[in-house]
Amino acid sequence: MEQNKAQEISTDGSFKRQTNRFTTPFGSKPGELPVEAKRYRLLWTPACPWAHRTVIVRNLLGLDKIISLGTASPLRPKTAQVDWEFSLDEAGVDPVLGIRYMSEIYKKTDPEYSGRPTVPVMVDLKSMQVANNDYFKLTNYLETAWRPFHKEQAPNLYPEHIQADIDALNEVIFHDINNGVYKCGFALCQEVYEETYDRLFARLDELEERLSTQRFLFGEFITDSDVRLYSTLVRFDAAYYSAFNTNRNLIKEFPNLWGYVRDLYQTECFGDTTDFDAIKKHYHVSITIFVDKEDVKILPKGPDLSGWNNPHHRERLSKKTDKFLYDS
Amino acid sequence: MEQNKAQEISTDGSFKRQTNRFTTPFGSKPGELPVEAKRYRLLWTPACPWAHRTVIVRNLLGLDKIISLGTASPLRPKTAQVDWEFSLDEAGVDPVLGIRYMSEIYKKTDPEYSGRPTVPVMVDLKSMQVANNDYFKLTNYLETAWRPFHKEQAPNLYPEHIQADIDALNEVIFHDINNGVYKCGFALCQEVYEETYDRLFARLDELEERLSTQRFLFGEFITDSDVRLYSTLVRFDAAYYSAFNTNRNLIKEFPNLWGYVRDLYQTECFGDTTDFDAIKKHYHVSITIFVDKEDVKILPKGPDLSGWNNPHHRERLSKKTDKFLYDS
Repeated sequence: MEQNKAQEISTDGSFKRQTNRFTTPFGSKPGELPVEAKRYRLLWTPACPWAHRTVIVRNLLGLDKIISLGTASPLRPKTAQVDWEFSLDEAGVDPVLGIRYMSEIYKKTDPEYSGRPTVPVMVDLKSMQVANNDYFKLTNYLETAWRPFHKEQAPNLYPEHIQADIDALNEVIFHDINNGVYKCGFALCQEVYEETYDRLFARLDELEERLSTQRFLFGEFITDSDVRLYSTLVRFDAAYYSAFNTNRNLIKEFPNLWGYVRDLYQTECFGDTTDFDAIKKHYHVSITIFVDKEDVKILPKGPDLSGWNNPHHRERLSKKTDKFLYDS
Repeated sequence: MEQNKAQEISTDGSFKRQTNRFTTPFGSKPGELPVEAKRYRLLWTPACPWAHRTVIVRNLLGLDKIISLGTASPLRPKTAQVDWEFSLDEAGVDPVLGIRYMSEIYKKTDPEYSGRPTVPVMVDLKSMQVANNDYFKLTNYLETAWRPFHKEQAPNLYPEHIQADIDALNEVIFHDINNGVYKCGFALCQEVYEETYDRLFARLDELEERLSTQRFLFGEFITDSDVRLYSTLVRFDAAYYSAFNTNRNLIKEFPNLWGYVRDLYQTECFGDTTDFDAIKKHYHVSITIFVDKEDVKILPKGPDLSGWNNPHHRERLSKKTDKFLYDS
């Protein structure tokens, strides 16, 4: 399934992610997608941050018992640059849906579908069609509409009293960080790249500060916003830093962000769903640049060179005052 | 001047740097290149580590007064991938040699010359031909044969009593580090890349240890070996880490190497000859891969992921024992 590459690029050379096609919410009102145990199958690949965060929330809430999971390879199929392939499954076919490529389920749902076949996607096993591929809202549906099926003692990732604050921060995290790294990597001109890069690191600096006095983004407990930030931070050093030119600093160089992301990594459903090998393979070997970057050469703005003139204190290792040997 | 790309690649997929064509030594014996003030012009580009080290030594010894310098652009000419261009000069021509491209002086010297036209190169202004392009030995010639022209109080970078030790270490630095980064970047198969990567970082680990108890490679004073190591280390984080997949760690992550390279950077003739902008432009925008890497996809072996399970101590920011909020 080839794609018109120009589709997701604006006239100023910046990347505009496609909007979601299947956005009917889950819920109990007429016209909403019914919430039912074992009715849906979630498709993901461990490479993709948007899908990863959905799987983390699904697992944290115990919905893994009632929403099954299909896993596509992190490597794009050779013949179809924007598709995903079930090549990790036996015979290369998802055992429940019987499809080889992600695009099949999209085409089956809408023969006219011309967007990228993205993950995450919830497939309705009753109709065998796409129910919802709204990567922005899926975790919120799992947290709210799916509450009747949460496990006992499920964490509340989206507490009502701070939902508006979470939503506001999620907007920022989406534009400047989650999608910010893609906008850096897919920029078609130096100016757009540098603007996005600056905004990305300004935001990381802000969060570094915020996380200096509190354990998580909203204080003492993990929320939906932490899941969203995690999915980008955990990919940053292994992928984006080099592959998307987001190279002012590694996350490892931010003391609070680095502690924070490891805190999450060491939490159930975070680290155990993080596949560094898949992430590296996807971004370094098999990444699809949805925009036509031939002949575009971006000069990475980083790394941060500010430390080169800082005191090095190496004199302590020497008894001599000079660092050169002179012939007498 | 196009180049047969296969020329510098061996059957196992590894990069074999071309040997130097003009290797007559400088000296006073018959057949050697005469050492004379103002007779030679050194050509370099600030992007190139081999040329950079020659310029550092020239300047440290005060030979800048008697060996002039021609500077090629860090950007390869669009029409000739392995050439260098004097586009920084007025009218795009070296003011002394009157050439636009580095290849011109090589062709003028040897019309049959089929190698890459490399820097550093010492041009004899009497014959207007290449005198020497032996990047491996040029600094040693400047340190020894050129001694009569050293400035007063010139440092001794190549003291006789440790010349054999310097030579031995220089061999190691050349194979595993200076050229090691290129072998990583130009590897045509994953296995060769990983072997070179392992050797590179094993060597950096060794030097990190060596530099924990002494200020420079041979103790309290700077030698030729330090100049050689510097020219690769100073390019590492800004270029090789991403462009050549040498991404186990940044130099910034090695406490001793990072202090050491800044110590040198803050020394006259090191930092003031280091042009990060040129380095970044060359390696990220205008690098010529001398080998045919189309369809070759190398998976970067780094970054070092060993820290992800290390203690993060973020609990100190929280009064709660749990990190999740549960509905009561």
